[in-house]
Amino acid sequence: MASLAHGLDLTVDPVTLTRHLVDIESVSHDEGRIADAVEAALRTHPHLEVTRRGHTIVARTDLGRPERVVIAGHLDTVPVNDNLPSRLDEETGILHGCGTCDMKGGDAVLLHLAATLPEPVRDVTYVLYEAEEVEERYNGLKHLAEREPELLTADFAILMEPSNAGVEAGCQGTLRVEVTTTGERAHSARSWKGVNAIHAATDVLARLQAYEPRRPVIDGLEYHEGLNAVRIRGGVAGNVVPDECVVEVNYRFAPDRSTDEAVAFVTEFFAPYDVRLTDLAPGALPGLDRPAAAAFVEATGGQVAPKFGWTDVARFTSLGVPAVNYGPGDPLFAHKADEHVKISDIETCATTLRGWLTDGLA
Amino acid sequence: MASLAHGLDLTVDPVTLTRHLVDIESVSHDEGRIADAVEAALRTHPHLEVTRRGHTIVARTDLGRPERVVIAGHLDTVPVNDNLPSRLDEETGILHGCGTCDMKGGDAVLLHLAATLPEPVRDVTYVLYEAEEVEERYNGLKHLAEREPELLTADFAILMEPSNAGVEAGCQGTLRVEVTTTGERAHSARSWKGVNAIHAATDVLARLQAYEPRRPVIDGLEYHEGLNAVRIRGGVAGNVVPDECVVEVNYRFAPDRSTDEAVAFVTEFFAPYDVRLTDLAPGALPGLDRPAAAAFVEATGGQVAPKFGWTDVARFTSLGVPAVNYGPGDPLFAHKADEHVKISDIETCATTLRGWLTDGLA
Repeated sequence: MASLAHGLDLTVDPVTLTRHLVDIESVSHDEGRIADAVEAALRTHPHLEVTRRGHTIVARTDLGRPERVVIAGHLDTVPVNDNLPSRLDEETGILHGCGTCDMKGGDAVLLHLAATLPEPVRDVTYVLYEAEEVEERYNGLKHLAEREPELLTADFAILMEPSNAGVEAGCQGTLRVEVTTTGERAHSARSWKGVNAIHAATDVLARLQAYEPRRPVIDGLEYHEGLNAVRIRGGVAGNVVPDECVVEVNYRFAPDRSTDEAVAFVTEFFAPYDVRLTDLAPGALPGLDRPAAAAFVEATGGQVAPKFGWTDVARFTSLGVPAVNYGPGDPLFAHKADEHVKISDIETCATTLRGWLTDGLA
Repeated sequence: MASLAHGLDLTVDPVTLTRHLVDIESVSHDEGRIADAVEAALRTHPHLEVTRRGHTIVARTDLGRPERVVIAGHLDTVPVNDNLPSRLDEETGILHGCGTCDMKGGDAVLLHLAATLPEPVRDVTYVLYEAEEVEERYNGLKHLAEREPELLTADFAILMEPSNAGVEAGCQGTLRVEVTTTGERAHSARSWKGVNAIHAATDVLARLQAYEPRRPVIDGLEYHEGLNAVRIRGGVAGNVVPDECVVEVNYRFAPDRSTDEAVAFVTEFFAPYDVRLTDLAPGALPGLDRPAAAAFVEATGGQVAPKFGWTDVARFTSLGVPAVNYGPGDPLFAHKADEHVKISDIETCATTLRGWLTDGLA
């Protein structure tokens, strides 16, 4: 990776650039190194006005075009799962590794366009942000939207989350709660004198195991909810009957359900256990009736699928900016040990976006 | 606590000494400060030969008596549970606080006898040791038994574990296993593509909740087994379906069951889940037929109860030294937030042991 010794070169082909980005490990809360590299690289291109806030970077063209679009991607990944550095399988055309799919393939397309299109037909605001894979309150795009929303003003936004190089509309909401069971401590040698809070969690886990997801159809797109324990903890010492067990649950809800309705659902689902809300982000309805969304869908061929995962599309929607997901990679492989992306997806996205930003003249 | 500024005075009455010991916080693995204080105090009494190994202290008389007894107690406590410093309720005669019952009341009796009985009718080996409340491998008495068993040679041993100031014979064995359920990671937004290992633990917890303990009668004493989850952990990140959940289980087994039988029981109980043994200590049969044990029981009034908890009685038994539990405090309150000891228990034990060590002439 000799090229990296002299910094990141954004003008290399998007597949090579994806590898370079993947090989800079950037688990959430540890994005400093990749943000430094991306910022330095963007600043070598004088047609971009670069702004940095924390580990979030905004690069804008300012050509006075009648339309402005945001193209955005997050820089962080879930924890590495013995799947770095990247590995390219030349025969199958598949690039393996943490972040290949979610979402450094998309970041590479975005950065390559930023560097190599000095005069797009639409003004573009490129956004690379931190902390998307963790609790809502750390999200770099959220901070930007709250503190400097003018940096995100646009007629339309494309979020390059993995979507098999197709347009995905809307997104599901997400919330997290901690469900706590309680008991009474006792020496484990005389356990019948206490009440075991971990044993009491049987009922909480049994409800989760029996859960049947809703699958509502909205604007012709079928969504699919999910309710999962994502963490569990309990215990005092190796010889103490524990008096508390905490199950952290993540609920993904379809965009026909408001955040209030979602909170009410989990509260009732786990009643009478103590339920504490720790994270909440609304879904976004597909919004395919908006002109800017429809125009982009048209340019990409007209096919649209529902987005199951929560993405920052919801944040743009709440800012009044129509937005869709469109990026390389199959989201089924995001966050998995065998995370990977098809090279052809990266190339399709790069070609399609380049065509759209140049009216097919580039 | 002005007296402590000049070190621990072992000649104060055993109740005051209990308070002084309780107020030196000594959670397992953090016994340095209390061991330093105890060692320094013992060394001021020239009739004792003091040896220190780690945070374990041995003090011996060497009067050439025909009989030698060990009197032992551990210095560590379970984690503090908002119950320090000690609090004496003068009206009820109860001393509250972490370690009052398990087992600094016993330690105080032991240390008071060591300091104030320069010429007992039986030679005495006083042992104060570290790390009894945690995994077997850290146990200070175990280290001594393995490395310098000659320091523990005796005709009889008294372990001052809480026993309501009565003799408790035998002890239950203890083992710990980690029971692991596995699954497959996936992004929680598409959870139906993964397998949730925490949900899979429902079955493990349900078996624990349905468990019915054995209660065998041995030498006329009824034991009472227990099988408890003492810790649980699982989870990767707030948006990942977890692929592993680990339940740590503590099994307390009656002394008619060997360690091999106990391991076989839990392995079958949790089959087909992965079961990994992390800690194992045998029980001890009551052994009331041995002459030295019978003589001590006689001196204390003749009443005997079964010991549910595992204690180092089992270790003495395996060294060929008959041993019983005898100490102040109700073991039901060990390891609880409202841990406490009756002052009268401390006084009873001190008086009885003093009488036994002086043939009633002191």
